[in-house]
Amino acid sequence: MPAEEKTPILVQLDEGGSTADRRARIGLQDPNASASEELQEKFLSPTLVDSVLNAEATETNLLTQCDEKFFTQTLDHFDVGAPTYQQRYFVCDKHFRPGGVMFFYVGNEADVELYLNHTGLMWENADEFGAMLVFAEHRYFGKSVPFGKDVTKHMQYLSTEQTLADYAVLITYLKKESKRDIPVIGFGGSYGGMLGSWLRMKYPHIIDGVIAASAPILSYFGDEVPHDLGGYSQVTTFDASPAAGSAENCVPNVRRAWPAMKALGETEDGRRTLKRALSLCEDTPLDEDIDALMGWARDSFDSMAMGNYPYPSSYIMNGVSKLPAYPMRVACSHLQDTFDGTEEGELELLHAFSKAIGVYYNSTKDKECYQLSAPSAEDAVDSNFWDYIYCAELYGPTTTDGVKDMFWSAPWNFTADNASCHAEWGIDARVAWPTIHYGGRRFLEVASNIVFSNGDYDPCSATGVLQNYSDSVVVVRIEGGAHHLDLMFSNPLDPEPLQAARATEKQHMWKWANEFYAVLETEKP
Amino acid sequence: MPAEEKTPILVQLDEGGSTADRRARIGLQDPNASASEELQEKFLSPTLVDSVLNAEATETNLLTQCDEKFFTQTLDHFDVGAPTYQQRYFVCDKHFRPGGVMFFYVGNEADVELYLNHTGLMWENADEFGAMLVFAEHRYFGKSVPFGKDVTKHMQYLSTEQTLADYAVLITYLKKESKRDIPVIGFGGSYGGMLGSWLRMKYPHIIDGVIAASAPILSYFGDEVPHDLGGYSQVTTFDASPAAGSAENCVPNVRRAWPAMKALGETEDGRRTLKRALSLCEDTPLDEDIDALMGWARDSFDSMAMGNYPYPSSYIMNGVSKLPAYPMRVACSHLQDTFDGTEEGELELLHAFSKAIGVYYNSTKDKECYQLSAPSAEDAVDSNFWDYIYCAELYGPTTTDGVKDMFWSAPWNFTADNASCHAEWGIDARVAWPTIHYGGRRFLEVASNIVFSNGDYDPCSATGVLQNYSDSVVVVRIEGGAHHLDLMFSNPLDPEPLQAARATEKQHMWKWANEFYAVLETEKP
Repeated sequence: MPAEEKTPILVQLDEGGSTADRRARIGLQDPNASASEELQEKFLSPTLVDSVLNAEATETNLLTQCDEKFFTQTLDHFDVGAPTYQQRYFVCDKHFRPGGVMFFYVGNEADVELYLNHTGLMWENADEFGAMLVFAEHRYFGKSVPFGKDVTKHMQYLSTEQTLADYAVLITYLKKESKRDIPVIGFGGSYGGMLGSWLRMKYPHIIDGVIAASAPILSYFGDEVPHDLGGYSQVTTFDASPAAGSAENCVPNVRRAWPAMKALGETEDGRRTLKRALSLCEDTPLDEDIDALMGWARDSFDSMAMGNYPYPSSYIMNGVSKLPAYPMRVACSHLQDTFDGTEEGELELLHAFSKAIGVYYNSTKDKECYQLSAPSAEDAVDSNFWDYIYCAELYGPTTTDGVKDMFWSAPWNFTADNASCHAEWGIDARVAWPTIHYGGRRFLEVASNIVFSNGDYDPCSATGVLQNYSDSVVVVRIEGGAHHLDLMFSNPLDPEPLQAARATEKQHMWKWANEFYAVLETEKP
Repeated sequence: MPAEEKTPILVQLDEGGSTADRRARIGLQDPNASASEELQEKFLSPTLVDSVLNAEATETNLLTQCDEKFFTQTLDHFDVGAPTYQQRYFVCDKHFRPGGVMFFYVGNEADVELYLNHTGLMWENADEFGAMLVFAEHRYFGKSVPFGKDVTKHMQYLSTEQTLADYAVLITYLKKESKRDIPVIGFGGSYGGMLGSWLRMKYPHIIDGVIAASAPILSYFGDEVPHDLGGYSQVTTFDASPAAGSAENCVPNVRRAWPAMKALGETEDGRRTLKRALSLCEDTPLDEDIDALMGWARDSFDSMAMGNYPYPSSYIMNGVSKLPAYPMRVACSHLQDTFDGTEEGELELLHAFSKAIGVYYNSTKDKECYQLSAPSAEDAVDSNFWDYIYCAELYGPTTTDGVKDMFWSAPWNFTADNASCHAEWGIDARVAWPTIHYGGRRFLEVASNIVFSNGDYDPCSATGVLQNYSDSVVVVRIEGGAHHLDLMFSNPLDPEPLQAARATEKQHMWKWANEFYAVLETEKP
C-alpha cells in the first residue's frame, strides 16, 4: 500500500432538482457539512461543480435508454431435464454500429439496474466502440428469481457454474438473434469481476476479453501461494489512516472503541449505557456476547472502505441512498479528537464512534436509532443470497488481529463459520472447491485477455490479482481508488491515476476487438 | 483420406497356453482361416510372431500391478448439498520416481479395467517418465455406479461437466494425498479423448497436457464451420474399400445388400427367407419396417471400422471377446465375390453379408443365430448409458446417403432422434449445448497442450481435430490407424506411421512435464 498522504476532499452531491438547486445543496447532506463546504470552496470551481452534477445526472436516466427483456434459461445446465426460469437482461442498442462490439455486464449479486446505472465505463465507451450494451442479471437476484416466493426452498440452482452457463447461453443467443458475429467484451466488478474473469477462463470462445475490476479471485484456500486472510481488514484500516486522507486519530480511536464496548457489554447497566452511546434502539437485543454488535459496526467500516469514492455515490448502498464523498474520511472526521480514559471520555468516544458508523447506517438521515441490521431492505436480501453463494462455493473468510488492523483479534474459525452456514442454509461451507474449479494462480498462467484492476483503497484488492501473468493477463493498479472505481462514470473528482488506468483498459479492449475481427477475416471462405 | 492401397494382413492371435500352442493356433479363429494362414506365412517371421504374442500376453495381467481404490465423490459438484457416490480408480505406482509425472487416464463409457488393460501408451512410457499411473472410472460405469440398481431413476447426475469435475477433484486429492506436486498428463480415447481435451481446456491448472486420441469433438452443431454429418459413414466405407486393404467388391456388395433386404422385408415369406439368409433367430421380431435390422447390421461395419486394428484385439468388444486383425478386411473377404441378380444370387449375397457381420456379432464363435442386439451384455449396458449422455448433452447425429458411403439414404431427422431420446429417457436431445459449453473451434484457438491424434481408418476422425491450432494444440495423423490405435500397446504389426505419431506425442509429453517443473522452479521462495 502506498504511504503517500492525500488531502481530504469532502463533497456531497444530491440528485433531483435544477442544477442550481442541486448546487445549492452541495455538502448539506454531510454530517460534516461545514468541512465539506469549506473544502468544496477550496477545490471546486463552479464549472467543475456543474460537470460533477451533470455526471451524476447522467447516471439516473439510463434505464430509459435500454430495453428490458427476459430470456427463458435452463435452471440446471448440467441436467437436461431441469426446469427453466426467466432471466432478465437489458439491451441498450443506440450506439451500435456494424463492425462494433458487444459490451456485456456480467451481473453479480444485486438487481442488475444497479450495475446498469453505475457502469460508466461501458456507457462512456459505447460510442467509440460502436457497442451494443447488454446488462445481464445474475440468477436469484433482482427480477431473475426462480420459484417466486418459494425461492429459498430451491437454493441448489444458485451456483457460479450455473450463472456462468447462463451468460454463455445468453450471449450465444444474443449474437444469433441479432445476427451479429461481433467481439464480446465483458465488464464485472467485485464478485461480478470474479465471474467475468472465470467466464473468460472457462468460456473463451464466448467472451473475447474481460475487464475484471476489484475481483478478489485469490481469496480461496488450496492455491499454491496461501493468501493472507487478514489482508481485507488491513486495507480497511489503511482507508481510515492519514495515508488515505483520514483523520490522524481515527485508527487509534476505532481500536479503542472495541474494548470499551466489551467492558460495557458485561453488565446490564453497561449494556443500557452502550445502547444509548451507540444510538441503538431500545428493543435491540443485546446480551453479554456483543460479537454481533461489533461485527455489525465493523461491517460499516468495510463498506465505507469499499465505497470510499471521491464523490457521493449510491453504489455501495445498492442505489437506495448515497454515501458522501470519501465516506471513510467523513466517518473518521468524527473520530479525529482524542478522548481521555475516564468513563466520560469513553462515552464520548463511543458517541463519536456511533456518528462515524452512522455515515453508513444512517446515510438516509432518517434513522432515530439503529437495529443491528443492514442499512436497507434491498441490501439485506442481496447479502442474504450472497451468503448462500459464500457458503455453497465461495467460502473466503477474512480475519482481524487488532494489530495490523484497527479491529480485534478474531482468527479464522472454520467451525463457527460452518455452523453458521448450517444454521442459515443447512449446508457445509466448501473450502477447497473454488481453487479446484477456478484454478487460482495456475489458471492465470495460461489464461488470456483479462485486465484485473484494483484500487488501493479497496479492501478486496488484498486478494485481487496484483501481478501481470502475461501480455494479456494484466494488472492495473489505481492509487486512491476504491471498489472498482474504474467502472464508474468519469468524474472531475476522480483521482489522477484513474485516467491512466482507464486508458490501459481501453487499449486492451481495442486489442481484443481487433483480434476478433482479424481472426474472422482469416476464416472467410 | 489417402488413396494408397494397402496389402491385407490377416493374423489371428489367441491368449493362454504356451507360445508354441498359441502360435499353432494363429489364424484358426478366423472365418477366413486359410487366407489368414497364407498371409501370415507371407509376412511374419517366427520372431515377429513371438513378439506379437508376447505383446498380447503383456496386456492381460495389468490389473495385478495396480491398486483398486474408491473415492467418495460429490454427485453434484455444483450443489453443495448433493449426495455422494464411490468413484473407482486404479493406481499403478511401481514406475514412479521423484521428479516424475502422473499419467491419468480420463475414463470414458466403460468399466475402467478395459482402458487399464489396453492403454499401452501409458504403460510403455511409465518407466521413462517415472510415472505413477492412474486410471479413473467414469461415473455411472463399471463399479462407479451411484444408487445401485436404482441408478436409472437418478440419471440427472450423469453429465460431462460432473465427470470433468470428478476428475479435477480426484487429481487434486491424489496430488495432495501422495504429497507429489507433479505434472499430470492425461490420456483419453474417443469420448475419453473428448473429456481429456475438455479437461485441459476447462481445468488447465489441474492437468498439464492431454493426449486426446480419436476425439470427435467437432461433431456438434453451432460451430463456426458446420461439420459433415456424413463423414463418419464415409470413413467406414473407406475401411471397406481396397484403399484400406479390403476386397474390391465389398463396398458394392454391401451397397446392394440393403435393397435386397428391403425387398424381402415386404412380405411375410420374404421375411422368413431374410431371417434364414442372415442367420437371425426364429423368434427375432421382424416386420415390414426393417430399419432396426438395417441399423443393427450397419453398426457392425461402424464397429469393425473403429476396431480395424492390425492385430486381434478385444478393445472394441469391451474386453469380452476378440475381433480378428483388420476385422473389416476379414468381413469384406466374405464379400469379395460377385453375385448375380437372380434370386439365388441375392440370397448368396445376403448369406455372405451375414458372414461378414458375423465377424463382429459372432466374434465369440458360439452364436447359432442372431438377435438384433449388442454383441455382449457388457456392451449393451455401456452403450445404454452412453445413449443417455448422447441425448442429454452430446447429440452428434450422423447420416448416410448411399452415394458417398455404402449404406442407404438416411438424412438427418431430428424429430425421430428426439422422439427416441424421449422414449428411452424422457428427455430432449440438446442440440446447441456442446458448442456453447465446450466451444468447438474457437476454444481450440486459445487452448494449449493438447495433442489430437486421428487415424484414417477411424470413422471418428471425420469430426476430429485435423489441423494444428498452435504450437501446443497440434494434430497427429496416423495413416492406417483405427480408433485410437496410438493408445494401444506397441505391436510389430503396427502400421509404420504409428511410430512417428507416438514419437511426436512423447515429445509433447516431455515438453509439458518440463514446463511444469520449470514453472515450479521459478516459484520457489
